[in-house]
Amino acid sequence: MSKHGDTALPGQWSPPYLLYLGNPADELAIKTARGVAYWRPEWCIGQYRHADCKPTLGLPDMGMAEAKERGANTMLIGTANAGGVMAPAIVADAIAALDAGLNVVAGLHQKLRENPDIVAAAKRNGRVLFDARDPAPGIPVGNGRPREGRRLLTVGTDCSVGKMYTTLALERAMRRRGLAADFRATGQTGIFVAGAGVPVDAVVADFISGAVEWISPARNDGGWDLIEGQGSLFHPSYAGVSLGLLHGAQPDALVLCHEPTRRHMRGLPGYPIPQLKACLEANLAAARLTNPAVQAVGVALNTSGVPAQEAAALCRRIGDELALPCQDPVTMGVEAIVDHLLACVAN
Amino acid sequence: MSKHGDTALPGQWSPPYLLYLGNPADELAIKTARGVAYWRPEWCIGQYRHADCKPTLGLPDMGMAEAKERGANTMLIGTANAGGVMAPAIVADAIAALDAGLNVVAGLHQKLRENPDIVAAAKRNGRVLFDARDPAPGIPVGNGRPREGRRLLTVGTDCSVGKMYTTLALERAMRRRGLAADFRATGQTGIFVAGAGVPVDAVVADFISGAVEWISPARNDGGWDLIEGQGSLFHPSYAGVSLGLLHGAQPDALVLCHEPTRRHMRGLPGYPIPQLKACLEANLAAARLTNPAVQAVGVALNTSGVPAQEAAALCRRIGDELALPCQDPVTMGVEAIVDHLLACVAN
Repeated sequence: MSKHGDTALPGQWSPPYLLYLGNPADELAIKTARGVAYWRPEWCIGQYRHADCKPTLGLPDMGMAEAKERGANTMLIGTANAGGVMAPAIVADAIAALDAGLNVVAGLHQKLRENPDIVAAAKRNGRVLFDARDPAPGIPVGNGRPREGRRLLTVGTDCSVGKMYTTLALERAMRRRGLAADFRATGQTGIFVAGAGVPVDAVVADFISGAVEWISPARNDGGWDLIEGQGSLFHPSYAGVSLGLLHGAQPDALVLCHEPTRRHMRGLPGYPIPQLKACLEANLAAARLTNPAVQAVGVALNTSGVPAQEAAALCRRIGDELALPCQDPVTMGVEAIVDHLLACVAN
Repeated sequence: MSKHGDTALPGQWSPPYLLYLGNPADELAIKTARGVAYWRPEWCIGQYRHADCKPTLGLPDMGMAEAKERGANTMLIGTANAGGVMAPAIVADAIAALDAGLNVVAGLHQKLRENPDIVAAAKRNGRVLFDARDPAPGIPVGNGRPREGRRLLTVGTDCSVGKMYTTLALERAMRRRGLAADFRATGQTGIFVAGAGVPVDAVVADFISGAVEWISPARNDGGWDLIEGQGSLFHPSYAGVSLGLLHGAQPDALVLCHEPTRRHMRGLPGYPIPQLKACLEANLAAARLTNPAVQAVGVALNTSGVPAQEAAALCRRIGDELALPCQDPVTMGVEAIVDHLLACVAN
């Protein structure tokens, strides 16, 4: 686990994880667990599934006691269901996990700490509960003071266009080059992947930029904080979160994330997707308030909806238009973006 | 009380008020009570002061039972003190007010509802408690859908430059002309003045624009919602709140508020005040996302720090520069701004 941002944790939960799937409605319901299994396989001891569970992460199936025996520290409830409610089966399984000696963490809207039976089970076993949608207490108001260290932030034309994936892909690529680079999580899946972080969209409005300053404190090892973006300056529901994130991050570098087949802003048919150039310029202009030296260093395109033979040409066209490297992190990696990032900051 | 935004009230508290001063440290500590007494004299039956209280609002001094007898419905704890804590004397007085049959409302950081003795007194007397810093539950995420009605929003170069005062002055001036115009409160003093509203800086970050949509719903009486702005797009601590407010308001008209002697952003010596023109243009650009027809209609200058003989010339200079009427609402009124507003929307 990273040393930075650990103060975001309200207790001592940590990997290794037993990933709880239970009996999910569909593949989408285990998105969080899948994200953790993909990005942190070394932290995932096994998966817990009901007999009738069809989705799988390909991890060994095991019970809670066995997971504990094999070294698991925490059961991660990595499922989502309609309304984010905690079904009775999940409550029973959370209690069983606590009785087996595991901590329990979850990202549901309904909180573990709001269920008295779960709270009692945690208490009698001396285990820790953690709700990823609960910001830690004590987050300060942003102070805007310049701080040491280098920071990159992913921004987007819309919500759900690949900001978390891109940020983690950059971390992996930079670490492979021997660079110090740490992903800083601002959403629930990211928090489980990082083992720390703050759900920025869940903090009280006055503390958005303060929360981001807090998860990416000054560092002087020459390394990078790679901060997971949220939302979009052009999304009428959530732009306040995106702007506070931008100011708190004081980014040296921005990577713009985009999904080229999206026809309107997520959930809002009346709102078109912004032009890439206008979107990037609006983000740069806003970011200059807290870091006048901010630069755009690349574009990350989610081309999963584009015919494979057209993806490369689309990236070239967008890259030419913005004079930036443009890649699909899933199919093309992010090496060209990292190259450009390093060239920009060396200047 | 206004019909709009009443759903923001968690209970049936309402004026008339007994304004509670207690024993405040200084004049600044009764800022909220003074704002309510100034803007809603017709709602203020009297003031409650300890024997050694020096500040006064010029209202009749009275006890809680007398206030109840004379028609008061609610005691408003309109004081602030270091850290927003609820001193033992305030707790005792709140309980006495409840026992005298008054509701109690307050805007301290420490909540009335968090004090078990106050909660018990409210219960046994069937009275209502209201903490103005507590957003009502059930605020939705913003949907950005265009809605009927005309809306004006005050925006600022910085925090604390006169946005609430300006918005209320516009309400008064427009009502005097026989126009339907309703102040929509987004901060604690404003909420007491309006008798309703949402403390926008205290909502969860994902709900900023939704909260503003909620307090200024569609209206089709030809009247205006005048929405109290908060913060500044150029304040690194709070800009997220300001942007969400701008998007949720879908304003037809903006009034820019400014304090010309301010040397740096409130609380942040490293951050200069933005240029008026750049500030106005940034606000207009952001506002166009949810209302492409938005127009700037005036500048409100707080000239209290400027020598009296220079204030008029300063307003002229700034008005010429921005091609907008520029007035100090306190010393010059807001008639020229209202004239221009009506001329703009008639077109």
